[in-house]
Amino acid sequence: MKEGKRNFKTIILSSCIILFNLIVFTSLRTNAQNMSQQRIPRIVSPEIATDNSVTFNIYAPDANSVVLNGSWMGVGENKEMIKGYRGVWSVTINPLEPSMYNYNLILDSVNIIDPANPIIIRDVNRYSNTLIIPGKGSELFEVKNVPHGSVSKVWFDSPSLGLIRRMCVYTPPGYEDSKGKYPVLYLLHGGGGDEDAWTTLGRANYILDNLIAQGKAIPMIVVMPNGNANQTAAMTDMPFQAESSRTQEPMDIQNEQAVIDGTKLYPNSLVKDIIPYIEKHYRVTANCENRAIAGLSMGGGQSFNIGLLNTDKFAWLGMFSSGIYGGTSGAVFDAEKQIPGLLSNSSFYNKNLKLFYISVGEQDPRYGPTQLAVSTFKKNNLNVFYTSFPGAHEWSVWRLSLGDFLPRLFR
Amino acid sequence: MKEGKRNFKTIILSSCIILFNLIVFTSLRTNAQNMSQQRIPRIVSPEIATDNSVTFNIYAPDANSVVLNGSWMGVGENKEMIKGYRGVWSVTINPLEPSMYNYNLILDSVNIIDPANPIIIRDVNRYSNTLIIPGKGSELFEVKNVPHGSVSKVWFDSPSLGLIRRMCVYTPPGYEDSKGKYPVLYLLHGGGGDEDAWTTLGRANYILDNLIAQGKAIPMIVVMPNGNANQTAAMTDMPFQAESSRTQEPMDIQNEQAVIDGTKLYPNSLVKDIIPYIEKHYRVTANCENRAIAGLSMGGGQSFNIGLLNTDKFAWLGMFSSGIYGGTSGAVFDAEKQIPGLLSNSSFYNKNLKLFYISVGEQDPRYGPTQLAVSTFKKNNLNVFYTSFPGAHEWSVWRLSLGDFLPRLFR
Repeated sequence: MKEGKRNFKTIILSSCIILFNLIVFTSLRTNAQNMSQQRIPRIVSPEIATDNSVTFNIYAPDANSVVLNGSWMGVGENKEMIKGYRGVWSVTINPLEPSMYNYNLILDSVNIIDPANPIIIRDVNRYSNTLIIPGKGSELFEVKNVPHGSVSKVWFDSPSLGLIRRMCVYTPPGYEDSKGKYPVLYLLHGGGGDEDAWTTLGRANYILDNLIAQGKAIPMIVVMPNGNANQTAAMTDMPFQAESSRTQEPMDIQNEQAVIDGTKLYPNSLVKDIIPYIEKHYRVTANCENRAIAGLSMGGGQSFNIGLLNTDKFAWLGMFSSGIYGGTSGAVFDAEKQIPGLLSNSSFYNKNLKLFYISVGEQDPRYGPTQLAVSTFKKNNLNVFYTSFPGAHEWSVWRLSLGDFLPRLFR
Repeated sequence: MKEGKRNFKTIILSSCIILFNLIVFTSLRTNAQNMSQQRIPRIVSPEIATDNSVTFNIYAPDANSVVLNGSWMGVGENKEMIKGYRGVWSVTINPLEPSMYNYNLILDSVNIIDPANPIIIRDVNRYSNTLIIPGKGSELFEVKNVPHGSVSKVWFDSPSLGLIRRMCVYTPPGYEDSKGKYPVLYLLHGGGGDEDAWTTLGRANYILDNLIAQGKAIPMIVVMPNGNANQTAAMTDMPFQAESSRTQEPMDIQNEQAVIDGTKLYPNSLVKDIIPYIEKHYRVTANCENRAIAGLSMGGGQSFNIGLLNTDKFAWLGMFSSGIYGGTSGAVFDAEKQIPGLLSNSSFYNKNLKLFYISVGEQDPRYGPTQLAVSTFKKNNLNVFYTSFPGAHEWSVWRLSLGDFLPRLFR
């Protein structure tokens, strides 16, 4: 106690030194890095007005044109920004509904991120800025002052694929302090995505935090693997290979043969590598009734196959905007061929599945074919829960789908 | 087994459907988002030649000028890119030493990230691209095919600061499979940084993986808290506040009073909130000999204060490029005033500390003052281990410092 008192003055002193240090360090670095930007006026962008109209600003005195492209616009639409005082280009858009959007600025034909907005997300290999309009439509995925679960990036051995791989694992608030066991949702991303997609673009961890805090979802572990069977990890964290590191190019996940091989092997790797890993290392209720699988787009198709071919393992199944029912060229859906007995022996699936959930965006080309498949399922007395959300093939639909799906699980 | 066989054909079929789906989905989205870029030639950037010269390329047919700015250049230096065939601007730079660098492109005076390079990092609120030249100088922090530890983003209650806060926790390979207890390093970032800095800019997790795989570092848990005492989490994951969310502006961590208040409270929050949390929730050898604290720049000053005022808690102390010794305007260092007895009773510190490690960059303005402080320490028989690395006040020095510091811990 005496030591504490004696040192109080010195702590204050050293605090001030650290403060000076911080200020000087910051200004030094800024000078070093932004020599060419010394005269930049202070830019705030985006500015969300109380009526939810939004103003975007960028300092670009030497640009020929600056254009705004946002996820709320139609395909091919852009909004021109106007050059104003001191080289600052601006545009104000009409009020947006509370929700999460992305946008880019297009500076002399090059897609860039808004330099004044540090909140960005990666979709495959492309970055854009995040814009969240607060309000009812954002409450599901906002970071609120509620207990937060942990998100871990975990590397594991996948003998089925011959790779060391990375996945994201969400453990709910209270997991670390309890001794209890938890149910598990395996949550799969879409084509081109990776193990980061559901937490970054999908904000799955914050959706879970919020629904758990409200008592709407049961605390659960959510496992978000990388669904590209030939990829060890997101392109940002791939192991260095002597050659590929020379270009820093992402592994070519669009390579057809690799995708075919990987897709064949993927169900095995989930069932034989990932589930055992999770059940060995986490406090999990390891039975069918406490295992769910769901995914979006490509991950929806993977969930369909893995879930329905392993009804002894999964009692809960979700598909968000899957293209296997059609709406994408080349898709030919034959339920009975794909899952033998799905129609002719639907009672088997009804008995084993507590939930077969299907959702799709109402502006997605998959909308009609999905409705058709659902009606075929129903005609054959297969129990499915079907719903749709406004939107195309996009994250707003998948965040809403997840928010609607989670409260139905493990009840 | 029979079921497996029967379904093999259907799996192949569905694989093909998923493949088509993936291709169509990807091309649809690309069309929707890049209408303005339909004619873009395929760009690879950066291209690292076998002699480690590097070519940067960007498609910018409408730009007036494109300039390259890299961390390997001197202050204020840039390199002009030349417009070539089909609107692609390029520049090739002389061979670089194997290491990790950042760069930006400057398009008509606006700092942008290279659209062809998905590997980017955030420093405070500013993004740049990463360029890793493979080779000896990068081996320390490359992602190698070795066992990888997990990195968790963990939220915890900090009563000392009245905040729910987020930190990063690295658990070493084997942690999940063992029942053993581990030593802990508390690793602090610099001014303006946050809990993400050591794993993103510092690649601390990969440095640990590599040193542990080579038997050079003892497997340890590394706790990377947010050192800004008024900040709940990195600006990318701050809770929504009705007002601040309207501008998406980061909380003003340069606010002087907040920094002073926070700096005063920070040591308390680390010792009273973070250490107990870690020791309750992880398998930790909870004694002085198995606790280390280290940090860079501002975090070095915090480590100095926290470590030396709590020698009953920390036997291992590291300071990388701290400004408390001088080299920043306003810094006044008086060892005895700051830590009573540090010089006059150095044997006390020698007895309690197993390592007092100090490093600095040889081109950092802190270099001379740090050497002076070290010589004062030595004159007063205070045991310090001092070393320096080529470089200024920058991450290359801090990655090397960490790589040099870790093998000395917990022996």
